[in-house]
Amino acid sequence: MLHDPNRIYVFDTTLRDGEQVPGCQLTTPEKVEIAKSLELLGVDIIEAGFPISSPGDFQSVVEISKAVKDPVVCALTRANKGDIDAAVESLKFAKRPRIHTGIGSSDMHIRHKFNSTREEILRRGVEAVKYAKQFVEDIEFYAEDAGRADIEFLAQMIRAVIAAGATVVNIPDTNGYCLPEQYGARIKYLKDNVDNIGQAIISVHCHNDLGLATANSIAGLQAGARQVECTINGIGERAGNTSMEEVVMILKTHHSVNLHTHIKAANFFEMSRMISSQMRMPVQPNKAIVGANAFAHSSGIHQDGFLKNRENYEIIKPEDVGFPSASIVLTARSGRHALKFHLERLGYQLDKEALAEAYKNFLALADHKMDIDDDDLRSLVTENLVK
Amino acid sequence: MLHDPNRIYVFDTTLRDGEQVPGCQLTTPEKVEIAKSLELLGVDIIEAGFPISSPGDFQSVVEISKAVKDPVVCALTRANKGDIDAAVESLKFAKRPRIHTGIGSSDMHIRHKFNSTREEILRRGVEAVKYAKQFVEDIEFYAEDAGRADIEFLAQMIRAVIAAGATVVNIPDTNGYCLPEQYGARIKYLKDNVDNIGQAIISVHCHNDLGLATANSIAGLQAGARQVECTINGIGERAGNTSMEEVVMILKTHHSVNLHTHIKAANFFEMSRMISSQMRMPVQPNKAIVGANAFAHSSGIHQDGFLKNRENYEIIKPEDVGFPSASIVLTARSGRHALKFHLERLGYQLDKEALAEAYKNFLALADHKMDIDDDDLRSLVTENLVK
Repeated sequence: MLHDPNRIYVFDTTLRDGEQVPGCQLTTPEKVEIAKSLELLGVDIIEAGFPISSPGDFQSVVEISKAVKDPVVCALTRANKGDIDAAVESLKFAKRPRIHTGIGSSDMHIRHKFNSTREEILRRGVEAVKYAKQFVEDIEFYAEDAGRADIEFLAQMIRAVIAAGATVVNIPDTNGYCLPEQYGARIKYLKDNVDNIGQAIISVHCHNDLGLATANSIAGLQAGARQVECTINGIGERAGNTSMEEVVMILKTHHSVNLHTHIKAANFFEMSRMISSQMRMPVQPNKAIVGANAFAHSSGIHQDGFLKNRENYEIIKPEDVGFPSASIVLTARSGRHALKFHLERLGYQLDKEALAEAYKNFLALADHKMDIDDDDLRSLVTENLVK
Repeated sequence: MLHDPNRIYVFDTTLRDGEQVPGCQLTTPEKVEIAKSLELLGVDIIEAGFPISSPGDFQSVVEISKAVKDPVVCALTRANKGDIDAAVESLKFAKRPRIHTGIGSSDMHIRHKFNSTREEILRRGVEAVKYAKQFVEDIEFYAEDAGRADIEFLAQMIRAVIAAGATVVNIPDTNGYCLPEQYGARIKYLKDNVDNIGQAIISVHCHNDLGLATANSIAGLQAGARQVECTINGIGERAGNTSMEEVVMILKTHHSVNLHTHIKAANFFEMSRMISSQMRMPVQPNKAIVGANAFAHSSGIHQDGFLKNRENYEIIKPEDVGFPSASIVLTARSGRHALKFHLERLGYQLDKEALAEAYKNFLALADHKMDIDDDDLRSLVTENLVK
């Protein structure tokens, strides 16, 4: 099934799991524009919507199917014919359609959400896959709340849906509950105990409620999953989904993991800003990879080391993710070396004594003024020369 | 040294590693106010500043030392006498002072930042500890860039500084480079190979450049570290430090890890808002534990499950972290069950048919209006009853 055993397929759900966040809703033309950018980014699968949920969502799947060529276009359903019929209809223009159907797999969900039994839920899951398979070849099955499911029952369910025709099996940690070693162990258990697992791709789908979505996804990929479900900027319900940019850059940085994607990481910065602005979801300055400060060095110790050799403090080059170059920001924590760097940038060459004097004035100013700009710097030097 | 072997000491560096971020600078009175809140939160150690770096920072350490009673107050230095003298002076009013000194430990830092050798750096580290120890009993040593250091040299350095009097040894992943299993393995190596390691507490200090700070910290604690260095909201240079709220809530949620802190988690929400506002660092809505959406359920499937039993989708009760109760937000992705919940909240009891009609109108409206408020809901029902 996989030509390259170390390739990770990137499944973007910004337009589905991301878009259902309060305040993030998009119009169909906006979704189409984003889908085209995701295609340029090199995403393998675009989850375009949940067609039964509203007429607007249905129409968005139709228009995205028309608009993109390379990525698989995927539509979400619950495990029932009505949902699947709507998804099939919405995907009729897709070059490479996929239906994403599924049902709860934890006893918590089976008993309290579905008021049902394991046997009945398993039967409904298998029937949904078989029904969808009549219309679309590529069927992904999600075992909702798999992070808390009884592991033997989960294995039984996964075996059954693969036998029914599922090509991808998604093991979501719906509540963001697992620790990395726990989530990795679940994936490994399925690899080791589901006899037909080689006929499907295992997919990881993690949530960030405890801040572990990225680590859990990596643990799942290391244990044998080959698809990662994620969103740009990690947006999504509650604390969000796995951040695509974090997972992709971990795989790029850590060669020892020996896994790779086809994502064009240099598009990340622009993609991140597009999603943030169109979906009205601010990215905090300290967000990994794409936050405004992600590559900003400000303390004196760090700036000094950075200026001597950027690899002292930089593991990813900002330009690798399309970032407008690493910045050295001047604050009261900055050292002489950083001040000198900025003064030279402005054309001032100071000897050691003059620099010491300028630095003293700089610290007095910086203790009262948060950001020191170029005009402040010029005034420091002028004062200094006049004295 | 440790009375309770499963207790984790929480070392907050919001006022030091957090405060050096561009735009985050605080006045001394602001720092004192935050330090008092950190004391109420139950933080064990407050890193109050880097006294040699500026007169304002020096004064802040003095005033925080006067203002708090229970937490250890810690001041940062490089491995030289001038820095240590300033730190000692700034801590003179502290009831429980600690000096945090250290030096680079990776060959990258030793060669390119210090232009030195392993032998010379080791000697400087040991001398700094011995010098500081003359004035203050509690000495923490940081081995900067330990994440990339040669592990045998790191062990040698840690052994030497403990012999010189270090009470805490901090193993920073300065560049946020490690994977959790790598970082955990470093801590385990030190536990297993440094013969005097039992005389000091191992501290984890992680950065979030790859989105792994929380997972790395947990891996380090599981491997034997007993102090975690962190900030509120995960603020800090570049992609920030470990988020205190994430680590604390993981330990609270995962009883199998069998570690605990003395943090009063119900203060997290207020603490998070205070830091965000005073330090001008927005918290993104999808931030784990403290983001505005962290407990907001919006999709129809999730809302339905949530209304049936909140444990279906909620692993932490919002009130546990001081959050103003979980919210069900209405958008085009919401289901009938959520609409009914809100209509009943407003006093409307609709039969099945009337609800179906209201839901259809609701979807048509929600496809064009992002957030549906109570007035919108009332208008839906009125229209519906008039028909």
